[in-house]
Amino acid sequence: MTSQAPLLIDVLKEYIEQKNWDEAILLLSRLRAADEADLFSELSNSEKRELLPHLSYEELARILENMKKDDISNISEQVNGNTLSQAVDRISPDQAADILHRLPATRSAEVLARMTEKKAVQPLLGYADDSAGGLMTPELVALTRGMTVDEAISRLRKAKPPRETIDVLYVADKHKKLVGKVTLRQLILAEPTMKIGDIMEHDPVSISAGTEREECVRLMEHYGLTALPVVDEQQRLVGLIRLQEVAQVAEEEATEDMYQMVGLSGHERVFAPMRDSIRRRLPWLCINLGTAILAGFVVNLFESTIARVVTLAAFIPIIAGQGANAGAQTLTIVVRSLALGELSFKNARKAVLREVALATINGLAVALLAGAVVYLWKGDVWLGVVLGVAMFLTMMVAGLSGALVPLILKLFRIDPALASTVVVTTVTDVCGFVFLLGVATLLITYLA
Amino acid sequence: MTSQAPLLIDVLKEYIEQKNWDEAILLLSRLRAADEADLFSELSNSEKRELLPHLSYEELARILENMKKDDISNISEQVNGNTLSQAVDRISPDQAADILHRLPATRSAEVLARMTEKKAVQPLLGYADDSAGGLMTPELVALTRGMTVDEAISRLRKAKPPRETIDVLYVADKHKKLVGKVTLRQLILAEPTMKIGDIMEHDPVSISAGTEREECVRLMEHYGLTALPVVDEQQRLVGLIRLQEVAQVAEEEATEDMYQMVGLSGHERVFAPMRDSIRRRLPWLCINLGTAILAGFVVNLFESTIARVVTLAAFIPIIAGQGANAGAQTLTIVVRSLALGELSFKNARKAVLREVALATINGLAVALLAGAVVYLWKGDVWLGVVLGVAMFLTMMVAGLSGALVPLILKLFRIDPALASTVVVTTVTDVCGFVFLLGVATLLITYLA
Repeated sequence: MTSQAPLLIDVLKEYIEQKNWDEAILLLSRLRAADEADLFSELSNSEKRELLPHLSYEELARILENMKKDDISNISEQVNGNTLSQAVDRISPDQAADILHRLPATRSAEVLARMTEKKAVQPLLGYADDSAGGLMTPELVALTRGMTVDEAISRLRKAKPPRETIDVLYVADKHKKLVGKVTLRQLILAEPTMKIGDIMEHDPVSISAGTEREECVRLMEHYGLTALPVVDEQQRLVGLIRLQEVAQVAEEEATEDMYQMVGLSGHERVFAPMRDSIRRRLPWLCINLGTAILAGFVVNLFESTIARVVTLAAFIPIIAGQGANAGAQTLTIVVRSLALGELSFKNARKAVLREVALATINGLAVALLAGAVVYLWKGDVWLGVVLGVAMFLTMMVAGLSGALVPLILKLFRIDPALASTVVVTTVTDVCGFVFLLGVATLLITYLA
Repeated sequence: MTSQAPLLIDVLKEYIEQKNWDEAILLLSRLRAADEADLFSELSNSEKRELLPHLSYEELARILENMKKDDISNISEQVNGNTLSQAVDRISPDQAADILHRLPATRSAEVLARMTEKKAVQPLLGYADDSAGGLMTPELVALTRGMTVDEAISRLRKAKPPRETIDVLYVADKHKKLVGKVTLRQLILAEPTMKIGDIMEHDPVSISAGTEREECVRLMEHYGLTALPVVDEQQRLVGLIRLQEVAQVAEEEATEDMYQMVGLSGHERVFAPMRDSIRRRLPWLCINLGTAILAGFVVNLFESTIARVVTLAAFIPIIAGQGANAGAQTLTIVVRSLALGELSFKNARKAVLREVALATINGLAVALLAGAVVYLWKGDVWLGVVLGVAMFLTMMVAGLSGALVPLILKLFRIDPALASTVVVTTVTDVCGFVFLLGVATLLITYLA
């Protein structure tokens, strides 16, 4: 399929150019939904605008449902409000809410007002996109303890749930409180006369609607769940989250962390429009320039020392390079462990002490090596001492700041990944140069 | 649950100290399986060794099945071969194969030889741990087109599949070739007399057993699948992969990429034993020291220029810091896009050109800014010109190497993330210093 894709898009583009709408739509409809949405996304804006009026509401719904969420606001600009609400009406409520979240507020209100499924979707709009409530679908069939297996199956047949939301069924008491779960497999395998209360698993893992989406994923992964019931403050069942809806969340979060660490927006894409990329990267590059100039300013303070021992200039990139790498190692592992839930404030002290201990040992090893290399290279013991001492201290600062910066950011409820590389590099650079040139200044009589 | 965990472990440790095995086991058995395995993992090796003989095979199996894979070889050392094979016999074949993969070869052979379920597990051992075959379970109930819905349900009841492997059922023809799929939900909702061939979805997405695990995840995420059928070279159904088994794969791959970029092993953990962490980090720190010294060597080549214009030393960290950040931005986005499948050799040329264009624009902006700052700081136009020109060229090299390094690594079938930050930083440092000090040397008469 993938290797044919470049051909398919050319065929589709040609149909559109020829205004052969029937063939264009036939081609799209023959693809699997996810591939259809991808192919549609590859069209230019003007091609989309031309093709859209010829799609049925069902076809548009299928494309919207399967399209990358970033492309949705783009499409929504190409169709009128009525068409959009007709299409969104045909999409599962959780996805519909997702789509409405992506539209400008006035557009979203207009589309919602025209929808027949308004009542199912509206409550979901109250939840943040990145909360359990924003991920859940309210489409569920709740069972009761007193039902027999046979009655439960009849209830399912009557409800005819439109989507795969019944692989796991939840059991609620008369106050709608969640009390148990039964899988569809258990229902099929059980005797028809058995009571649900007797076959259900009690006290299933659940999550409250306001919880962050990372926590949903972590919980589902930890317990190996395919569905997670969502409850309100009164423990009443309000929806469920399906694993296939959140499987990508962990990946997206990891990507966001990687991007934020180097000062990229989480929304950056390798083929995003140039203007967007410049807008996203240039500000960070300018901030970084500021911190780099700060480091340069520190070096400049020691101009007279460097003037006397010019060789010190060659040590500047050695200190900077090594501090940056050691800091990046610690930083990356701390940011990632925070994201994966392996590290929290509870065990933060232990982690920081461990990183400092590691920095001490690795720092000693690297410092000795660096000092020895310089001695062999320059034949001057004191130059080796200066680099070695500065290297050791720099690696300690790198370990300490690499561990502390993300923890401090988290303490202030800022994403621990946010530009943390820039901060840690600045701290190690500035401290490193003070160590290098400060020690050299102290030992200047032995060096010059 | 989580907030109680530190208490629970203390209680468990106390039971073990008191040799109160009944209470210890009761405590473990009351927890959800994943929490039980976590709690057990928190015990010290000697505590594990003491408790293990008192666990039933079922309890040991439950712990092994839910434990982090890294901890398994540790446990396997604490129990004898017979106990281990009895426990592994009680685990689903795909998980059992996973566990056997983690054991030393002789131990694995010994355990396998004693197992009753040997026949189910052995074929799985032929597949690499990180392939579709290594992820799949062979436990499946295949249907045929000619069956009625009622017959299919009876077949399921007779097979009594022990685990959730029947939420999606696959249909095979008489040559065992995969021809369709039916969800359990469709079976329950359909008329009992309907034929499977009439309700099944034709031509379901499948994957061949040798495919890499990243590809399995990508496919399941792309098509929103909860189960993926695995076929052999003859398109015969040999197993299925469940989404809950692979949901963590994408996250693990992302973590590995982040770690490898800064020269950390993918197995590094924030609370790994110190010795392991030193063994994993120190070699990269030494390699990095080598590249940093290389950069220092380049600076040293221009010693006479720096001696005449000492201010140039202050520009070294500015060039290094800015080149590193610009390079890291491009590198991160290229590595991540390769991992997510958004970027491949097919569209690599476009991506490289785009990054170079971005580097040109951002480079010009940053160069002008840097030059202006230096002019205001030092009151010398020529110093501004030197830094500006060097900055622009460095940012171009950063963009180019950030895009090319991971692509070249991939071309040689090396993980594109592997130590790519170290390589890109070295390239930008070395080139950046040559630009800075080279331009300064050319313009020396205007500077000194």
